[in-house]
Amino acid sequence: MTDRKLRGAMVGGGPGSFIGPVHRMAATMDGQAEYVSGVFSSSPEKSRDFGKELYLEAGRAHGTVEELIEHETSLPEERRVDFVTICTPNYAHYDAVCRFLEAGIHVICDKPVTVSLEQAYDLKKRIEKSGLFFSLTHNYTGYPMVKQARHMVRQGEVGTIHKVVVEYPQGWLIGMLKNQQGAINPWRMDPAKAGKASTMGDIGTHAENLVRYVTGLTIESLCADIAAIVPTNPMEDDGNVLLHFKGGARGVLIASQVSTGEENGFNLRVYGDKAGMYWLQEDPNYLVIKDPSGFKKTYSKGNDILCEAARKAGRLPFGHPDGFIEAFANIYLESFRGIRALLEGKPIPGDLDVPGIEDGIMGMQFIETVVASAASDRKWCPWVS
Amino acid sequence: MTDRKLRGAMVGGGPGSFIGPVHRMAATMDGQAEYVSGVFSSSPEKSRDFGKELYLEAGRAHGTVEELIEHETSLPEERRVDFVTICTPNYAHYDAVCRFLEAGIHVICDKPVTVSLEQAYDLKKRIEKSGLFFSLTHNYTGYPMVKQARHMVRQGEVGTIHKVVVEYPQGWLIGMLKNQQGAINPWRMDPAKAGKASTMGDIGTHAENLVRYVTGLTIESLCADIAAIVPTNPMEDDGNVLLHFKGGARGVLIASQVSTGEENGFNLRVYGDKAGMYWLQEDPNYLVIKDPSGFKKTYSKGNDILCEAARKAGRLPFGHPDGFIEAFANIYLESFRGIRALLEGKPIPGDLDVPGIEDGIMGMQFIETVVASAASDRKWCPWVS
Amino acid sequence: MTDRKLRGAMVGGGPGSFIGPVHRMAATMDGQAEYVSGVFSSSPEKSRDFGKELYLEAGRAHGTVEELIEHETSLPEERRVDFVTICTPNYAHYDAVCRFLEAGIHVICDKPVTVSLEQAYDLKKRIEKSGLFFSLTHNYTGYPMVKQARHMVRQGEVGTIHKVVVEYPQGWLIGMLKNQQGAINPWRMDPAKAGKASTMGDIGTHAENLVRYVTGLTIESLCADIAAIVPTNPMEDDGNVLLHFKGGARGVLIASQVSTGEENGFNLRVYGDKAGMYWLQEDPNYLVIKDPSGFKKTYSKGNDILCEAARKAGRLPFGHPDGFIEAFANIYLESFRGIRALLEGKPIPGDLDVPGIEDGIMGMQFIETVVASAASDRKWCPWVS
Amino acid sequence: MTDRKLRGAMVGGGPGSFIGPVHRMAATMDGQAEYVSGVFSSSPEKSRDFGKELYLEAGRAHGTVEELIEHETSLPEERRVDFVTICTPNYAHYDAVCRFLEAGIHVICDKPVTVSLEQAYDLKKRIEKSGLFFSLTHNYTGYPMVKQARHMVRQGEVGTIHKVVVEYPQGWLIGMLKNQQGAINPWRMDPAKAGKASTMGDIGTHAENLVRYVTGLTIESLCADIAAIVPTNPMEDDGNVLLHFKGGARGVLIASQVSTGEENGFNLRVYGDKAGMYWLQEDPNYLVIKDPSGFKKTYSKGNDILCEAARKAGRLPFGHPDGFIEAFANIYLESFRGIRALLEGKPIPGDLDVPGIEDGIMGMQFIETVVASAASDRKWCPWVS
Repeated sequence: MTDRKLRGAMVGGGPGSFIGPVHRMAATMDGQAEYVSGVFSSSPEKSRDFGKELYLEAGRAHGTVEELIEHETSLPEERRVDFVTICTPNYAHYDAVCRFLEAGIHVICDKPVTVSLEQAYDLKKRIEKSGLFFSLTHNYTGYPMVKQARHMVRQGEVGTIHKVVVEYPQGWLIGMLKNQQGAINPWRMDPAKAGKASTMGDIGTHAENLVRYVTGLTIESLCADIAAIVPTNPMEDDGNVLLHFKGGARGVLIASQVSTGEENGFNLRVYGDKAGMYWLQEDPNYLVIKDPSGFKKTYSKGNDILCEAARKAGRLPFGHPDGFIEAFANIYLESFRGIRALLEGKPIPGDLDVPGIEDGIMGMQFIETVVASAASDRKWCPWVS
Repeated sequence: MTDRKLRGAMVGGGPGSFIGPVHRMAATMDGQAEYVSGVFSSSPEKSRDFGKELYLEAGRAHGTVEELIEHETSLPEERRVDFVTICTPNYAHYDAVCRFLEAGIHVICDKPVTVSLEQAYDLKKRIEKSGLFFSLTHNYTGYPMVKQARHMVRQGEVGTIHKVVVEYPQGWLIGMLKNQQGAINPWRMDPAKAGKASTMGDIGTHAENLVRYVTGLTIESLCADIAAIVPTNPMEDDGNVLLHFKGGARGVLIASQVSTGEENGFNLRVYGDKAGMYWLQEDPNYLVIKDPSGFKKTYSKGNDILCEAARKAGRLPFGHPDGFIEAFANIYLESFRGIRALLEGKPIPGDLDVPGIEDGIMGMQFIETVVASAASDRKWCPWVS
Repeated sequence: MTDRKLRGAMVGGGPGSFIGPVHRMAATMDGQAEYVSGVFSSSPEKSRDFGKELYLEAGRAHGTVEELIEHETSLPEERRVDFVTICTPNYAHYDAVCRFLEAGIHVICDKPVTVSLEQAYDLKKRIEKSGLFFSLTHNYTGYPMVKQARHMVRQGEVGTIHKVVVEYPQGWLIGMLKNQQGAINPWRMDPAKAGKASTMGDIGTHAENLVRYVTGLTIESLCADIAAIVPTNPMEDDGNVLLHFKGGARGVLIASQVSTGEENGFNLRVYGDKAGMYWLQEDPNYLVIKDPSGFKKTYSKGNDILCEAARKAGRLPFGHPDGFIEAFANIYLESFRGIRALLEGKPIPGDLDVPGIEDGIMGMQFIETVVASAASDRKWCPWVS
Repeated sequence: MTDRKLRGAMVGGGPGSFIGPVHRMAATMDGQAEYVSGVFSSSPEKSRDFGKELYLEAGRAHGTVEELIEHETSLPEERRVDFVTICTPNYAHYDAVCRFLEAGIHVICDKPVTVSLEQAYDLKKRIEKSGLFFSLTHNYTGYPMVKQARHMVRQGEVGTIHKVVVEYPQGWLIGMLKNQQGAINPWRMDPAKAGKASTMGDIGTHAENLVRYVTGLTIESLCADIAAIVPTNPMEDDGNVLLHFKGGARGVLIASQVSTGEENGFNLRVYGDKAGMYWLQEDPNYLVIKDPSGFKKTYSKGNDILCEAARKAGRLPFGHPDGFIEAFANIYLESFRGIRALLEGKPIPGDLDVPGIEDGIMGMQFIETVVASAASDRKWCPWVS
């Protein structure tokens, strides 16, 4: 049953989308899957035209999720899709996921998982009940050197962690203003569509996820100062957050889309009683360990001295840069490993290294806690769960 | 005729190959093509097994080029391959290219194009006669910021060039010795299989190609000091070359596989009477322009101020790293543009930005000239043509 | 009267001191001054021995400030010291400054200026009354590219500032533990000697000073999370602070001596509506301006395109690194300019670019506010003045 | 006799000089010496005025070396100079050194030592005969991390060296043209004043010296391609050189003052069978060891894990940048250690780590060999001695 490429559908990711092509390249570059159907626009005609651009078979690009599901489930099993990628604006995730689960189709969903914590809890129940596969594209955990970082923390190479600084600075929102390229994609600043937070949902959740993935630490309480720096933004575009982790470590989380001139400077610093650690998404193939004696050791992606997870996640030898798409593709490779297991009637492998609904729930809890702190005059708030 | 993915065959790139998966990822990640057949091993059984791993249709993985061609040409046109990727060791390129051209199949070939200059001249005639598409995967010219560099040179932003320093340092050969992981892939050090040069053919030709692509300069004469640093190597593993370009510019070209601890540190520096320019393959998404007044301007991949070619070649916004595979894929995208034009009965677009047989000939001339200089006691030699 | 080197005394900076030699090199390297007397130890004998090492004239190394002042004021004017450098532990600053002012001797004092805000206010009155020169060695403002940063902000090149991130991470305290080199210099962790804060006084005040110097922004309120990470430390060794500036800008200030493996990574990022700006003390001869369109412009110390203050503050052409000592020496050069003016009976030049008692007061206010916030369960506190 | 600062004279380094202030800061910043007399201009008046700026005693700034020597030798021993710094244009070194040696005054001389190899040989004899101290300011060997590099090579950490790449790229000459700031300092391009080479003498000799200092390797033969890129330059402003070292290692040496936009990018790469090594003068406080397994280890100046020479040569803890002047001052500190030994009637310490007349001779031999190769149509030439 799995001696073939998996067949996927895509919801969202149509004309003008940034993340749609990323999902398509990531899902297909390793030759493990192909997209055969999709909903690329609510206009059936636009969706059809876009399907042609993707060389889809006629009749498999639809205007609604319902239509797609109806059509797919009418097909013989050997042509039907195995999984769906959902990369619509946030507000449409929940409904789409529910429908695909009901239709028995495995789901890979973009983040943040939903627009409310309640929806996320509800999805968890539905996923468990369905027995289907579900993963969430917190793609930055797909980078080989992030896996190496996690490994080294687990091996005790940084010792007991006492401080974490995670920053996700972007400046494109200011760039848009400067270049007068029009406003931000409107749904991102519409609470009805983006959820309770904008920047903190879009990239703040990546920061929370990365810290947890690498360090294993979870937040106990936080103090959040968020603001709309661009006055016309109805939601926040910048946030600075003090963190207390369970167990006593402290930290700072900065997420911003108005850090002028920053590109996608997501970075993580971890300080333990043995060593410090540094990773920067814009130079992702290196991991720096800082020894307090006065030297730094920089590990490169793509060599034999890395941990197994980091080695597997690298496609090329050292010096040959793996990029954003390859890291994203690693999320898909692990997802496909899970899906193939289920298709073969086996359980999902215990060592599957992919973000799932629990990560989605944590992300929503993070948003809720940030918003609660901000709303209470920027007081410290315990983690909302 | 081209409202579909192109169909490709692959020769080489089987079990254990480094470059085979690169070609497959690069050719397919943009959804423009899929591989449907191949010769992955001279053992029919191994080839067949590997075809299964790639989810090829049964019967389309062969043990010889002849067999593959015979089978493909027996298929109805709508199933037959459009193009072949040849990524065997160097010595097998020539014969394979000849056969596919005879069979009317477009060719994308790895570099160096052949093992002798004569073969390269001969291929040129055959390609011209065939009317088929031929490109050569000098993949580094596929990086967006290399295209920006070329653009800026053409726009006069560095002024008249007087000096070029190009280096391609690798150290993996020493790494192998240190780690006792056995010897270098034997064909690379076998003159019968690698051609007249080893390191200078493998990576020296990339250096020559990059200089010419970015600056437009061609070499007039050179003085080459090549050597086998690892005593058991029957061919050179290191080379230092002084260059004189037509028109008076001077330069240095260094290519090495024994530069201990270097990864894939290919880099180019261009000095003109207005500015200097720097690009490093290990940090490929940036291009540095050095102004003599005391500032440097670093351009990032993925923004609107780049030239059209650089913008088109970037898949993601700034700060989201494009890597080696994406640059390689750009060679395929341009190749597919050429192939689709021919399939539609149109001429190859005049603006096609892809290395071809002329680049292959220049590469072979470079090898011949280096070898001639080395053989004449490291004297200056005029360009061999 | 000023056609000669100035004559200085030093209080503190004796055997084993880190900062004493820095003051001596900084004060004398430009040939504008020499130290002729000092109190290097409370043991008269140790002080005398140390004076010999410095080639001081016999009889000019004393055991107490009183003794030194008595001796100096007994000398004929042409041998008497013009100024004193006070680089004792914090708690001894106040008393020493008072005595030298009373003796009519100009003062250059290390930071933080005192151990309480009250003392700082009192000093201000005494300095004003004395008519003498007083400066404070917030040495980081002496770097040429910090002056260029300030200039560019004033020229509007970053536009209206909305966000500032300043970090001062060090890790030597963890290094000490790891290397078992004994405890931190005890006075730094003794509230009676260090003042109300340890790390926030030692390096946090540098961070506050740098932000204010470059941006002109002053803090309106802050929320401080400080802690003793090393359990045996009686005072804080780490602090994370959220900032609100007057006028609406926001920010983050991080100061730490337990950021394992960090050396002296003081850095400043400023985000305005036109551009971002970045400076790093460990690579101090460069200033990066980040344009939101997708390029960075890096200015180098030592060229003609910099502002006058930055040009004057650089001792060497670009590419010849000025270091920590040269930046420190710039504080002395400006101080000497002020002292020479007074010695010549002129007013202190209006354009004098040197930190003074106002900066000392702001530093103490910063400490007070941080401590108040921490004491109130890490609530937001308005600036204490 | 040495319980006092040493007294120095300076020849050269007057108004407008770049290197004069460097020598003064370097020689005096550690409190070991002071300049008390000098010849700062051939105009007695200008020299006198400049002496005033330096706060020299009246009557100790002269118009000729003879005058200075006559005056100094007429002074009582306790006021007379101990040493002289010679930092005139190259052509004046020889005569000045001879006269000071004759007068019994120790000499610290700028490089290249003379304008011909014969002069250098002659100086060697005179120095030996005099019993006086002589050192040459190849200042780059004064950097702490250069000393660490030398140490690590000696300890075998890079293994047997097979390749060296040393580059000294500057671009200020193009900058001058661009900014129309007039021509290069004329003596540098006048063979009568600069010697047989310009750029290769000015900075090429630094490159030769650094390679030898760090690796211990000496050149056996070379092939030099030098040129005047700026057409109005009567001497070379750029050079690319292939090197063969005694023992079989190979290398490349590049020195240029027309590498547009480069500042003072002197750097060294050493490749051995165990590791590679990298040092860059523009970021001088770090030394990178590249392991072929896929990691880099970066050592920082100013910590306890460095070798003794590197520790001693660093003035500040890690993260506090030492700069160009401090490295230069290390040459003076070692010179003063030698001079003080002689003043105390002891031999020069055997472990003295300072460039001397042998380095000067090697530098002149390097120039002679480069010029011989260039003159013989850029053929390989054996080392001229």
